[in-house]
Amino acid sequence: MPTPTFREIDVERTRWFLEPGPIVLISSAFRGERNVMTHGWHMMLGYSRVGTYIWDANHSFELLRRSRECVINVPTVRDVDTVVAIGNSSGRELDKFETFGLDTLDAKEVGAPRIAACHAHFECRLADASQIKRHGLFIWDVVRAHARPVPKRPRTVHYRGEGEFMVSGEVMSRRGRFKPQNL
Amino acid sequence: MPTPTFREIDVERTRWFLEPGPIVLISSAFRGERNVMTHGWHMMLGYSRVGTYIWDANHSFELLRRSRECVINVPTVRDVDTVVAIGNSSGRELDKFETFGLDTLDAKEVGAPRIAACHAHFECRLADASQIKRHGLFIWDVVRAHARPVPKRPRTVHYRGEGEFMVSGEVMSRRGRFKPQNL
Repeated sequence: MPTPTFREIDVERTRWFLEPGPIVLISSAFRGERNVMTHGWHMMLGYSRVGTYIWDANHSFELLRRSRECVINVPTVRDVDTVVAIGNSSGRELDKFETFGLDTLDAKEVGAPRIAACHAHFECRLADASQIKRHGLFIWDVVRAHARPVPKRPRTVHYRGEGEFMVSGEVMSRRGRFKPQNL
Repeated sequence: MPTPTFREIDVERTRWFLEPGPIVLISSAFRGERNVMTHGWHMMLGYSRVGTYIWDANHSFELLRRSRECVINVPTVRDVDTVVAIGNSSGRELDKFETFGLDTLDAKEVGAPRIAACHAHFECRLADASQIKRHGLFIWDVVRAHARPVPKRPRTVHYRGEGEFMVSGEVMSRRGRFKPQNL
């Protein structure tokens, strides 16, 4: 387990980590119970706003709905087997933090834990509950964000289905071809 | 420009291409006008349902809202400069198809064109317009899907902000560690 040396970052830097589409770990806590789930269906809905689709059969669903808080944690390829194990077990049956040896850090604004082994943590509060029942869609405001200062570009894993991941690859800058307002 | 040899694929295979989070090109058409935009804020909302955040200042916004249709095209790294050029120009000022020499193919179910140089095309119909005004969120059902049979894994580009892209990298299968119902 690496030393958890995180720095707070601007919440508007969320897109740097989430827009490329990595698998994330969503942690939750409500009235003494906590859980963590593996998650691939998310999107930016603003520079500090994120949507996540959560199936109501997931044990995390009620913890998230009732606490109205979560932490979105970005794991790296080093922890892919833990990510898969978390995604293939249920918080109904075991404490995933204990079972998988997940060290946690306290969040500043929310009750859900930050997973120390991850590269970045986005503390979120529910901004709009109206689409949960209709579309399984939780709309979150990122209220505090933390990331390890190095590496700048973590090697993230991106799920395709069929048990297969894509690992983030080479960097390609086209900054010079952008209008400044489009960066 | 490669030979556009596409095959129809099951709409439930959409996640294979979109869940990893690539930049896409969204094409639209309404009453004789057409446009295409570069887009990174999207998510799966079901196996054949996709959400896209579209800013109302985009020229495509009204074409999409009024036609209630689009094609989500998945470009590859070979066309990254075209993707950037499309994202840094407006359909208000020029015909992007002409300007950037984009060959198109007819869609089967919708009026929006398929961009021939892309790897996969998802023909979409608006499933829910209720979140467009509130969140800029268009919720689409994929009604027809097409992809090139090879390569199975296109080299896609994933935007981070700041003019920088990540190119999809190595494959990592963990299929054996999944419960069958979780694949």
